[in-house]
This record gives sequence, structure tokens and C-alpha cells, in this order.
Amino acid sequence: MKKNIYTDLAVELHELVCEEKKQVKEEYEIDGVKVSVSKHGDSIEVTTVEVLDEMGEREIGKPIGNYVTIESKSMKENDIDIHESIISIMSKKLKEIYNIDTDSQILVVGLGNWNITPDALGPKVVSKVLVTRHIPEDLLPQESHKLRSVSAISPGVMGITGLETAEVVKGIVQRTNPDLIIAIDALASRSVSRINSTIQISDTGVSPGTGMGNRRMRINEENMGVPVIAIGVPTVVDAATLINDTMDYIIKDMATYVEKNSDFYKMLDELGLENRYPLIKDILEPYEGNMFVTPKEVDSVVDRISNIIANSINISLHKGITTDDINRYMY
Amino acid sequence: MKKNIYTDLAVELHELVCEEKKQVKEEYEIDGVKVSVSKHGDSIEVTTVEVLDEMGEREIGKPIGNYVTIESKSMKENDIDIHESIISIMSKKLKEIYNIDTDSQILVVGLGNWNITPDALGPKVVSKVLVTRHIPEDLLPQESHKLRSVSAISPGVMGITGLETAEVVKGIVQRTNPDLIIAIDALASRSVSRINSTIQISDTGVSPGTGMGNRRMRINEENMGVPVIAIGVPTVVDAATLINDTMDYIIKDMATYVEKNSDFYKMLDELGLENRYPLIKDILEPYEGNMFVTPKEVDSVVDRISNIIANSINISLHKGITTDDINRYMY
Amino acid sequence: MKKNIYTDLAVELHELVCEEKKQVKEEYEIDGVKVSVSKHGDSIEVTTVEVLDEMGEREIGKPIGNYVTIESKSMKENDIDIHESIISIMSKKLKEIYNIDTDSQILVVGLGNWNITPDALGPKVVSKVLVTRHIPEDLLPQESHKLRSVSAISPGVMGITGLETAEVVKGIVQRTNPDLIIAIDALASRSVSRINSTIQISDTGVSPGTGMGNRRMRINEENMGVPVIAIGVPTVVDAATLINDTMDYIIKDMATYVEKNSDFYKMLDELGLENRYPLIKDILEPYEGNMFVTPKEVDSVVDRISNIIANSINISLHKGITTDDINRYMY
Amino acid sequence: MKKNIYTDLAVELHELVCEEKKQVKEEYEIDGVKVSVSKHGDSIEVTTVEVLDEMGEREIGKPIGNYVTIESKSMKENDIDIHESIISIMSKKLKEIYNIDTDSQILVVGLGNWNITPDALGPKVVSKVLVTRHIPEDLLPQESHKLRSVSAISPGVMGITGLETAEVVKGIVQRTNPDLIIAIDALASRSVSRINSTIQISDTGVSPGTGMGNRRMRINEENMGVPVIAIGVPTVVDAATLINDTMDYIIKDMATYVEKNSDFYKMLDELGLENRYPLIKDILEPYEGNMFVTPKEVDSVVDRISNIIANSINISLHKGITTDDINRYMY
Repeated sequence: MKKNIYTDLAVELHELVCEEKKQVKEEYEIDGVKVSVSKHGDSIEVTTVEVLDEMGEREIGKPIGNYVTIESKSMKENDIDIHESIISIMSKKLKEIYNIDTDSQILVVGLGNWNITPDALGPKVVSKVLVTRHIPEDLLPQESHKLRSVSAISPGVMGITGLETAEVVKGIVQRTNPDLIIAIDALASRSVSRINSTIQISDTGVSPGTGMGNRRMRINEENMGVPVIAIGVPTVVDAATLINDTMDYIIKDMATYVEKNSDFYKMLDELGLENRYPLIKDILEPYEGNMFVTPKEVDSVVDRISNIIANSINISLHKGITTDDINRYMY
Repeated sequence: MKKNIYTDLAVELHELVCEEKKQVKEEYEIDGVKVSVSKHGDSIEVTTVEVLDEMGEREIGKPIGNYVTIESKSMKENDIDIHESIISIMSKKLKEIYNIDTDSQILVVGLGNWNITPDALGPKVVSKVLVTRHIPEDLLPQESHKLRSVSAISPGVMGITGLETAEVVKGIVQRTNPDLIIAIDALASRSVSRINSTIQISDTGVSPGTGMGNRRMRINEENMGVPVIAIGVPTVVDAATLINDTMDYIIKDMATYVEKNSDFYKMLDELGLENRYPLIKDILEPYEGNMFVTPKEVDSVVDRISNIIANSINISLHKGITTDDINRYMY
Repeated sequence: MKKNIYTDLAVELHELVCEEKKQVKEEYEIDGVKVSVSKHGDSIEVTTVEVLDEMGEREIGKPIGNYVTIESKSMKENDIDIHESIISIMSKKLKEIYNIDTDSQILVVGLGNWNITPDALGPKVVSKVLVTRHIPEDLLPQESHKLRSVSAISPGVMGITGLETAEVVKGIVQRTNPDLIIAIDALASRSVSRINSTIQISDTGVSPGTGMGNRRMRINEENMGVPVIAIGVPTVVDAATLINDTMDYIIKDMATYVEKNSDFYKMLDELGLENRYPLIKDILEPYEGNMFVTPKEVDSVVDRISNIIANSINISLHKGITTDDINRYMY
Repeated sequence: MKKNIYTDLAVELHELVCEEKKQVKEEYEIDGVKVSVSKHGDSIEVTTVEVLDEMGEREIGKPIGNYVTIESKSMKENDIDIHESIISIMSKKLKEIYNIDTDSQILVVGLGNWNITPDALGPKVVSKVLVTRHIPEDLLPQESHKLRSVSAISPGVMGITGLETAEVVKGIVQRTNPDLIIAIDALASRSVSRINSTIQISDTGVSPGTGMGNRRMRINEENMGVPVIAIGVPTVVDAATLINDTMDYIIKDMATYVEKNSDFYKMLDELGLENRYPLIKDILEPYEGNMFVTPKEVDSVVDRISNIIANSINISLHKGITTDDINRYMY
């Protein structure tokens, strides 16, 4: 896989491999990876990437498992009707991907740093999730029998607690024994166009701080001892990735001017290779790998998307809550 | 101990017993309890209550252990000089009460609900504690060798997470193995005059939500597996307690008007007993035991006191930080 | 009017006068004050108090004007169906009380201190009000023509800004020329039972900080130059008021034991008078007039009620928003 | 001035002009602009750019006036000793630039959106400024006579209030009559290396939302009617600017490979011109001009720098506060 490029999205990793194989996405088939796309109306697209085996794992660099991506340009807009369609699609997809019965207890985990707007998605979702685990049977509203036992916590980030986030979550899991973890985190995409218009749902877990920081101990079934559904939204693009793609862009543009095999073409080709890293480092001095790009209205967009996700989780978990109840259990 | 009265302070429980024994605090000796008082300047008083055995435990209703209370009317005022004296006294007292060596790792826990101003003390302290556990040796400032490994977390309250707070803390302790827990919580006092002018340090742990809610699984050495130092500040008075004391007050006042043994005196006496509870319940309808009394400037006062406590903790834990560094490591 | 008692609610001031006149509320008629009550279902009651003239003003101590009070025990509960009924009643009442045409511009003002949970109601409402004044016609959604020009601000409190809040609002009004001000503020009630279960709408303005602090320059039509609709919810009871009522309570209780005209009865009567103030002051030492009583779940209750009020305002102001859109425009 | 490049810093605008003139900064003299540099220790540099006349104004695109820039790589680090040196230099510079006497009243304005971490600098500073205007003489601490009358407000941004921020500030100024406005805002720099390591102080005012949004009505002496000191820190780089500079960078790099006057050199040169804008727009699709680049630790860095600025303001305004009191009046 290309260096200098960072993305958390399986769809983009798949695209990258296809690019490299100098193939158009549609035609190309990667061994061990199955991709299917479905449209919902003219503004919502759902892509499922299945990584079937080690082969696929090596090819696109994501663990074996399922990656459902819901994409809509309107996700970040103040377009409530489409938000409601997304909620009903997403809650269905979540129900399909969970493997739980009515008595299963759920722990919702909001990853990320609540002090950094584009990283606060997880904690914001947690603040809107309907928490019921502590309510005694008899104090529950009539429809209690339609409410599942749900707990929720935002463990913070290592920079704030000094603790490995996955260790904090594992400790809580071991003491409170949920049957399933739903972990929400802000991600980084490769392309600007996917920021705040993509929700990725996967059954392979998540590494805290990928969107914002360095990879850490992974929150997945292997480490936690219970299944983990990860919900992620790219809210940023890594700055080094943006610069790298800018270089690609301009180099491709120039290559059209020069005849193949000329010295200059070779030079461009070299630049296409890894020796461009010093240039990137130079431009981002003194921050190097530690800057991100995000839109100016990030605050209201993260509010909207956290609302979409929290509604989808509430509806997918509680028999007593349906798409007619959108936003009814959010406060 | 008197019913209808709620307090988390050992000094007040001691006073209560003395009152009952119709004795003045100074003279009276309670079996199994040792009390000593020292003055620091004319505005700071330190009281140590030692509960020595089961006898004392029964008498004042607090577990065997040490309770150091630092009192100063100026604690809640914007009087920075006195705050600094309190910090230097408190950091000394903390060092005395810890039983740790230079390599010991510390977990600071901020209990309470950050959404309720007088209950947000713990989380506010945590946000000002110097956290070092995650910093690689080589990245630490020169004086790193003078910094101890400290982590800190605010686990939230059951109403927000749906989880038993003590279970959350225990899970984190079991995964991250600190040698000592320092738990900060807002408390309830019996008397209005002690609100925001008292800091209680004890080695007997704390029950999350005592200040604001019902007693829960206790965070103490027995349950956590490591020693627990509890730091508490009364930021509220339970409303039922205030009403009860008002009744006492007015009844005492009236008793002076009536001759003993008159029917009316008996009536007053009865009111002095437990049958006043229906009246209290009536007045607080529909909230009953669930209201608290707090001063209007609670927001800035909690800021000031969280500053005092966080400074005292930072100074007591890190060789590299002294009273000359007050507020230097708070951001 | 009784001293030692503080309330911002016209209904309670009316009750107080009636009590004094030793009359039951229902029967008694106060000159210059008209009261009418209507029921909505079995859990919502709407009371309208009209202060007709100077006479009424003197009698109940509220300025001439209309005071609509919506009461429901379920307002503070997590009972969404009743919340929606309250929203539809309240939005209707608001439309009745406004005197505006389709082009009128509105300024919503959230009074109170966002750092003190029970005083944060106003700022919370403002954060949920649909603000449109800055959106260029062409950028508005299709139903733009159904959206009114609305701006909203939370000016903070004098303790934070150092500024007289009414001066801040007046300055903004003079520069931005709204046709109507809607001011939301937390209030203090006399009785615990009305906390968080009462919404008062009036056309006589509001004095910033009455709920939490001292009366200040009033935000009303006379001072602002444009009409002011005030929306208030009692989230606290003044502590001195609670103690005073406790005394009343116990004294009434005792009076039943003593025969009239006995010396002791006289003594009780005296206590009924103003010389009880020293006792109250004594009990609240050192805070005196500066403490309040509020329920423990104040954080979630204030969230719920701010939601009710913001929805009612959005629906009452914008043709394009109806009760079918409850919570749809809140993020 | 170059298109595609955005910066709020006078020093960078000056550099840009020099670059264009193909001159090294040191040697080159721009008509109507005077630049002087001084070193403080080996880690702090202070540059003063004076725009003397219309000529200079046209040349570098900043209004006539003084721009003092304090630069230090350590500003963003947790290096408290250097922070204290910066505070003492900055407070001196502020005193020089103010033109006030002991009775002058000051209004501190925190511009920017508190919901977007890198834009929250202004509001954070305001929360740490010592506000005294509302305190009655007799309630002030002894050193009251050494405290100046200061008020402070964060007016929010147009996207939140619907109001033109400068109008809000002007309204407040007209009602409360300060003698001087100090306005703090987050800015955008051209170069990544200046982010969070530069403080610009100027006497020419500020346009709300330049760092994050579009230029608006300017907060300056002409519009406000009183002098305005603007304090700004670049916390972001505009994404389009970063991409543009990346292109420059790679083009310069390539130009070294090609002989002048070759067709290809011309092509590079063209790319150096404005026709690169479509490429930039393409890469940032769909966000175009509305993205910013910021470092990952932006939250703690903004805390540190707001601390530096608030301390400098407090010390510069109050006789009673000196560099010995750093952080003493921040809570």
C-alpha cells in the first residue's frame, strides 16, 4: 500500500489498491476481498467491503471482517429528511451486524478527546444514547419491557488520563460483563470529499486515537473478550496525506506535458515514489505527522452526525424505540 | 446517631454525639475516638479525628481510620494568600497520610457529576492534576526524575453511565495496577457554615454519590485492593437536614418560654423526636430526600477549592514540584 | 406581602395575599387582579393572572400585565408524551401573547449563569433555538419563506462580565433593532412543589438574576424600547424562604395544641411575625440571603425543560415548523 | 500580493512582498513600512512592523499602524519558564501600546467560536481575565486601589447568534462606555511553523472570523468610537494556502532540474501563476475555501497560550498585579 497516505476507511484502502493496479475500481477484483454497492434514493450509497481471508487482509491492510460504509453528501448538511433516511438505513444495518438476543447487555463506548471538536464525536454520541442499565425494573416507564440494558462511557484519551484507553475499557468490561461493545470514534479519511459524509460500521474493532493520534492497543473481540462493533466517521484528513495527494495531483497534471522516457519524466516518476517524504516533512515542520485538516463548520456538523448515530443506536437496541421516535429519547 | 440528619464529616458526627450526650465538645471523651485540634495562623484550623476501634465506629458511625479536617472561612473567598497557606498545610498532611515510596504509581479519581456545579469538584480537580503516566521517560522535561507516575480519570456517575462507579474504578485499577488511589468527591455537611470551608482527608475511602445521591459500593482498600485516600469538601447541605435543624432551633427557642413538665413541653419534646419526619417529608414534597442547599456563588467557589486541592496533590506527589510552583502546573 | 418570603411567580404571590386575607384561594377576589384556570387533560393546568391596575400591582407586587402559568408535575419527568402536549399548549399561548406580524424580527435572550446548573436554563434554551437572521435568503432551505428572522444570545451574568446584563441587551437591541425580545430566565418559587413543574410566560419583562441574585435593571419594554416576553421556570427555592415556611409549618402545627389567648399562643404569634428573621439569618450563617435549594437531578431536568421551551419558541415563531417537527430543529 | 495565500500576520505579509520582489527579507526595504527585530534570550524574538502610510498599506495589505509580533517555538510547549518570560515581555509591550491613564475603563472582548477548539482562544482568555467593573469599591480587597475597572465578554460568532459580532460589541460599547477595547482572536498564518508560536499585538483592530470565516465589519477605533488593541495568535493555516505552498515548493524543486526557457519551464512558470486555482479547488472539493489545518494537540496548546495572554493582560492593566503574581488571579 502507498506510503505517505493515511486512511481508516476500508473503501478507500480498496480504492488505493485498485489505483495501484492501474485499474478502475469497478472492473478490478482483489483476491480475498468482496465489494458490493447499493443505492438508497439518489443521495445515499451503501458499500459493503468483506475482507475474506489473510490474502485480502494483506492486500488492503484491514483485518478479516465486514465493513459497511454509508455515504451521503447530505449527512453534513442541515437536511433533516435525509438524516432520517440515513437513521433508518443505519439502524437496520446495525441490527443485521449485531449478533445478540433480547437479554444481551450492551456497553457503548465513546472514544476520542472531547476537547478537540472533530475528535469529540464519540463522547457526543454517548451523551445522547439512552442509558438504562441502572434503572430498577419497577422504575422503568411502561414500555420498560421493550428497553434493553444499556450502559455508556467516554473513557477519554491517553493525553488526558495517562492510561491506555483499551485497558480502561477492558477493565470496565471485565467488571460489568456486557455481551457486546459498540465503540464510536472519529476517523481520518484520505479524501476531503468523504469528511463528514461517511459512516463506517465494522465488526473488527477499532484502535483508539487513529483519527487523531498513534495506533494503540486495539479494542476488538480478541482483546476485550466480547464482540466489538465499531462505528466511525472521518472528520479529518491527515495533513501529510493531503500534501502527498496534492503532489500526485500536480505531477499527474505535468506528466501530460512531457513525453515518456524523457529525463524529466523519470524525475517526475521518482517524485512519485517515496523520496518525496522529506519534502512533506519540510512543509509541515515542526509538526510533521501531527496535523489534520478539517472544515470550518466542524462543530455543527459533528453535532448533526452524532445525532444520526445516537438515534440509530437507540433504535437498533430497543424494541420500544422506532424510527417514529427519532430525537424523542435524545435528552 | 440522630435521624433526619445527614453529614459526611467525621468532625460533625463527633459533635453530634457530644450534643446528644449533652456535653460540650471540648470536655467530652467518646470511647474509641481520639480528637486533636491545631491552629495555623488565626484563620486555619486542622482537626484530626481518629476512630480507634469498633466502639468508636459504632459511636460516631464512621469506619476505623484517620480523618484530617482542614477548616478556613477564607477557603471560599478570593483570598489567594490564605489559599497558599492551605495548600502548603494540605500537601504536608497528604504526604504524612500516604504510605508510598518514590516508585509508587498513583491513580487520581474525580468522583461526582460534572453537570451539577456543586458535584463537579472531583472532575475539576482531575482536570488540573499533572498526569505523567503516559509520557515516555525520554520526552519528560529535565526534572522528569522528580516526577512520579500519575494517571487520572473522572468515571462519571451512575445516572450518566448506568454503571456502578466503584466497579468502573475497580476495573481500571485491576488493569493498570496503581499502588494508591486518591479519590476526590463533593460531600454534604450538616451545618451551612462548613460548606466550602472544610476539606476532609481520610484513609477510609469514600462512597460515590454520598454528597448528591444514595450510598453505593464503597471505594476503599477492601474493595479496590489498594489503599485509598479520600479527599472531600462539603459543597451542599441536605435540605431535609436543614429543615430538621431549623425545627430543633425553633423548638429550643420555644422551650425557654415554657416551664418543664407542662403538657406543652412534652409536646415540644415529642417534636424533638422522630415523629417530625412526616412534617419534613411534607415540606419537601415531592422531592423528599432528594434536594440540596448550596450557595449562589458555588461556581467560582468550586473553581477555587479545586485549585487548592489539585495544587496540594501535585506538590505532595512530585518531588519536582514545591509550594513555589503553585499554579505553575495547572494548565 | 409577607417578608422573609421570595417568589418570582405571580400565582404564588396571589396565593400569598389570599392566605394573608385568611381566605381560601378559590373564593377570594383581590381588587385589580383577575385569575382564571383551565385544565388540559388530567396532568396540565394553565392559570392566567391578569394584573389590571395600580391597585392589583400594589396588592400582589407584580407589574400590570399578563402572567400565564403552565403547570404539570410531569414536566420534570422523562415523560415525552406529556412534554409534547405541553409544547403544543405553550406554543399556542406564545402566539397569543406575541403581537407581531410575519416580517417582525425576534431576539431571543438566554439570561442566567451557564456555570450554575439550575441557572443555566436560559443559555440552554438559546443553544436550541433555530437562529436564521444571518442566513442569506438564497441559502435558506426551500421552506425559507416559512422561516422568520431570529437571532439569539446569552449575555452572561454580571459576576462573569462585570456588566449590567440589561445594558448589554439594550446595546444589542439598539444596534440590531429587533421588533420583539423573548427573554428566558431561571426563577425562584416559594414552594418546593412548583420547582421544575411550572413555566411562567409574561409580557412585563424580567429582572436578570432574580432567581439567583439581586434584582437589577429590568429587561422590559420601558427600558428596552421594544416589547419583551419573559419565559421563566422556577428551578430553585430561596433557602431563607424554605426555612421561613418550615417555621410557619411547625408553628401552625403547634398552635393546634394551645388554647387561644394563652401567653404561649401570643409567643407563637410573635414568632409568626418579623422578629423571626434573626433566627433565619443565624441558621444560614455565613450565607444569609445567598443560598438556594434545588433537586439532585437538576441537570437532566433543566435539559428536558429547556427542550420544551426551545421547541415551543421555534414552533411559535416559524410558520414552517409545526408540532410534527418537535425536536427536528434542535441540533 | 499573491493570490491563493491567506495570512493575518503582518510579518508574513511583509515576507511575501519581499519574496515577490525576489529579495531576501533582511536587505529589502518596502516603501512606507518599517521593520525592526529584537531578541530576548535565545528563544524569544520580537518583530515590530510599522505601516507608515497609504504606500505601505497598499504594499503589504494591512492598515496603517503598529504590529508587534512575539515569536517563540516554546510558546506551544509545556515550558513554564519561557512562558513566564513571554508574559513579562508581552505585558510590557501592552503597556507601551495602550494609551490610557489610571482611571480608564477597559472592555476585553474574546472573539471566536468556543465550540471549535482552535477558534476558542478569545473566549478562553476572557474566562481568565480578572473582571472588576461590577465590584463595589468597599467590597474590593485591600489592594483594590491598585485594581482598574475591567469588564469582559465573549460575544460568540454570527453562526451561533445570527448577529454581526462587531454590532454586538459596538452596542455594548455604546451602553457601557469603556475607554479602550482589547480584542483577542484566533488567526490564520501562512506557514505551519508559526502556528501557536506567534502572538501579534496591533493597534489597528481586528475583523471577527478572519481566522475561521469571512471578513466582517471590522472592530477598530473608527467603527467602535474608542481605541482597539487587537491580540491575535495563529492557531490554523488555511488549507488552500497549504496546498498552494506545497505546489510552489514542488515546482521550485523541479525548476532546478530544467533549463530556463525550455517549454517545460514555461509550463512550470504558468503553474506558478494563478491558473492553479482550479486544481486547489478540485483537491478541496466540496469544501474549497472552508478548511483549515491545525495540530493534534491544539486543545492543550490553546489552554497554554490563553494563559500567557490572560496573565499578560492582567499584569498590564492592574498596578496591583505583577509578574510575581503569574497565575495567581486566574481562577
